[in-house]
Amino acid sequence: MPQLRLLPRRAWAALLSQLLRPPCASSPGAVHCHSQVAKAVLTSQLKPHQDKPNFIIKTPKGTRDLSPQQIVVREKILDLVVSCFKRHGAKGLDTPAFELKEVLTEKYGEVSGLIYDLKDQGGELLSLRYDLTVPFARYLAMNKVKRMKRYHVGKVWRRESPTMVQGRYREFCQCDFDIAGQFDPMIPDAECLKIMCEILSGLQLGDFLIKMSWKDVRHEMVAKKGLAPEVADQIGDYVQCHGGVTLVEQMFQDPRLSQNKQALEGLEDLKLLFEYLTLFGISEKISFDLSLARGLDYYTGVIYEAILLQSPAQAGEEHLSVGSVAAGGRYDRLVGMFDPKGHSVPCVGLSIGVERIFSIVEQRMKVGLKTFLVRTTETQVFVATPQKNFLQERLKLIAELWDAGIKAEMLYKNNPKLLTQLHYCENMGIPLVVIIGEQELKEGVIKLRSVASREEVAIKRENLVAEVQKRLSKS
Amino acid sequence: MPQLRLLPRRAWAALLSQLLRPPCASSPGAVHCHSQVAKAVLTSQLKPHQDKPNFIIKTPKGTRDLSPQQIVVREKILDLVVSCFKRHGAKGLDTPAFELKEVLTEKYGEVSGLIYDLKDQGGELLSLRYDLTVPFARYLAMNKVKRMKRYHVGKVWRRESPTMVQGRYREFCQCDFDIAGQFDPMIPDAECLKIMCEILSGLQLGDFLIKMSWKDVRHEMVAKKGLAPEVADQIGDYVQCHGGVTLVEQMFQDPRLSQNKQALEGLEDLKLLFEYLTLFGISEKISFDLSLARGLDYYTGVIYEAILLQSPAQAGEEHLSVGSVAAGGRYDRLVGMFDPKGHSVPCVGLSIGVERIFSIVEQRMKVGLKTFLVRTTETQVFVATPQKNFLQERLKLIAELWDAGIKAEMLYKNNPKLLTQLHYCENMGIPLVVIIGEQELKEGVIKLRSVASREEVAIKRENLVAEVQKRLSKS
Repeated sequence: MPQLRLLPRRAWAALLSQLLRPPCASSPGAVHCHSQVAKAVLTSQLKPHQDKPNFIIKTPKGTRDLSPQQIVVREKILDLVVSCFKRHGAKGLDTPAFELKEVLTEKYGEVSGLIYDLKDQGGELLSLRYDLTVPFARYLAMNKVKRMKRYHVGKVWRRESPTMVQGRYREFCQCDFDIAGQFDPMIPDAECLKIMCEILSGLQLGDFLIKMSWKDVRHEMVAKKGLAPEVADQIGDYVQCHGGVTLVEQMFQDPRLSQNKQALEGLEDLKLLFEYLTLFGISEKISFDLSLARGLDYYTGVIYEAILLQSPAQAGEEHLSVGSVAAGGRYDRLVGMFDPKGHSVPCVGLSIGVERIFSIVEQRMKVGLKTFLVRTTETQVFVATPQKNFLQERLKLIAELWDAGIKAEMLYKNNPKLLTQLHYCENMGIPLVVIIGEQELKEGVIKLRSVASREEVAIKRENLVAEVQKRLSKS
Repeated sequence: MPQLRLLPRRAWAALLSQLLRPPCASSPGAVHCHSQVAKAVLTSQLKPHQDKPNFIIKTPKGTRDLSPQQIVVREKILDLVVSCFKRHGAKGLDTPAFELKEVLTEKYGEVSGLIYDLKDQGGELLSLRYDLTVPFARYLAMNKVKRMKRYHVGKVWRRESPTMVQGRYREFCQCDFDIAGQFDPMIPDAECLKIMCEILSGLQLGDFLIKMSWKDVRHEMVAKKGLAPEVADQIGDYVQCHGGVTLVEQMFQDPRLSQNKQALEGLEDLKLLFEYLTLFGISEKISFDLSLARGLDYYTGVIYEAILLQSPAQAGEEHLSVGSVAAGGRYDRLVGMFDPKGHSVPCVGLSIGVERIFSIVEQRMKVGLKTFLVRTTETQVFVATPQKNFLQERLKLIAELWDAGIKAEMLYKNNPKLLTQLHYCENMGIPLVVIIGEQELKEGVIKLRSVASREEVAIKRENLVAEVQKRLSKS
């Protein structure tokens, strides 16, 4: 999908360029960078020490804090995902972290045991949401919404035995896109698969494949279209040979099927879907999987799952199991379960497994961190002084910058050393320094220093904001 | 604070201009706008009907869904708040929704009863976080972080009896900014007050005042500086006369105090703070309040609270009680409660009450909604056809637009009516329509239609993306 890759590559390149910056100017800075990065990585991994018997400080099992470094990466990934959702015309929606217990029961089947219940403290019985799909269905039924294309980014909670290495947690973020409403067959389904491809291409995690559950396709044909099981299994033979489109074509050429009216009817939807996927230029990315089957009770149709294909090139990622990074499917009857009269709204959607994606990107970042430093702040200007007793001047200057919308910092010290102030800029990647001292004050000027080149120029005090803005717009 | 207002007004103007758009072009469109807005407002207020005895579909008591309209407003407000936090050099941080129960206990005093506990399902005893401050302190202690300027936007949960009218919920969003670390006195404190002013000015909710708790100032002077209570109460007299700076000045002129060494020492910090606030140009916004006192146990120093001053001009807002919209203070001993050796990290911070702010803005929006329509999607282009059997062409076209990063939509119908498609654009505020029909296909062109002006031009099929991008960059 050359043209598909086009945008995402640009997007990701932009992402990385924002995320990473070259090591600071030679000598002191560079040294500090490394030490700071080391500290950063170390800090974000620090375990609480056990030397206090009665009370160990930790996050609950299966949960974690996100350090500033992780927040930066996380935000870039979410931006890419959400911008794709918006590109497809989705509206935003938010629901409470917990629902009435009865809203969640009988929606998930065997995994229901993994739902977090809240303690009965009087009043309603509540449970933390297990995903974003059931709350969405509850919202549609509750507000009598018959059509909606929405995205939702939020945390969900599952009491699974966590295996941190693979980025699976008991609290994790989900990014969902869903299309609710009665539409002509397979058009929304095709868009969901297109969105999966756009996002996975955009994130550039390597090649990927979207697998459709054959079990469910078979079920659809047998149960709904009344196709004889043995005929369905004949079709099943084709599934051995990978590749969606070719598969469908072959089926239609085979006399055993093409002469069987039921079989043809059973294949119509599938044919339609792959016709649309071809027009979207992504049919090569879709194939069937014999083993794959619905995980959750509410799915009614074919489900799909996106997996990353291990590219041998990537060294040092061996121990990272490459599994499902996105999944979705149809759930045409879920909304009806919430409607007093049972009126339902057909839905199809997808969920991006950002935690898994986050783990992969984070791992690559760590490799990158050896030579690059992630900026955890956006500070543009630092206000410094070489002399003592210049706190007042610094406060006046920085307020001017803030009020002009410029991102500025200074040290909370009455009389900091100039070197300390400059090192801070190098460590934090702040590009510009505003310096005020006795001489500058006397001459009514300000010194502007570029941290990278270390060049300094004197500018009129009254031109401060304009000059800074000019330089920032250039860089 | 003229210069302070400068940026924010621009910011807010930008906010509104993004948020609101003029009614659609005359006739059909306009009508649809109103009906749609009516529907939107209605929908977001719809209550579940009670006609099903055993199971009422609703959100838990004190919680609510955020409709797409509300999400748009919410995001604009959070953007303004977060960009201010970043302007002051804050790093992002995220913590789990729940903590070990013992992490929260003995931190909140009498309000501890409002904490949501999770059910004991085996394993650790957990509680939903009550605020973002205690988790931050836990993070600092757990990772041995001695200095950090961080912001955190996240949901917190409190089992209060909700009074929806005033925008108080059991689940609500907090926006916190905190400065942790040992620094020279009152510099970080002054910055926190500056940030409050920048945000409240930026949101332009009307005039506001930040009140400092006199009780705590007095306590500081008596308990810490050993000032005689009667002298403190003499000072207290001054507090009657509003106005921070003037107050402090008067105190220093009064012989009863200026000749009392202890009193002077007791006033030093206060003097320093107001000196900095004056340099920041916000001292006029700060005054003392006799009634105000610490709500939470962990505060150790002076606390402050921002309130909106009811401007008589605003009609139709009578029933909206104007109360605290932001609060903060020092908590120098909280981190120590998590450190095995009791080593503490002094902290000062603030929390923006976005829910309250959100209610006020939402109310003003509703007035606005009579004449303006909030766009809930960002769709730039709609792909339409006047003829039957053009689904394939539309799918090809829209994929091209998506792959070029253009936000595009179409109807999920094989043969939609052209009028239906154009009305959809007017209702949703989509500015541009791409039209493909038999004639266009024959001539190898595409029709570009401006929804507002209804002008149509034919462009070469191969120039589609370039032409669309050109027009979008102009608008």
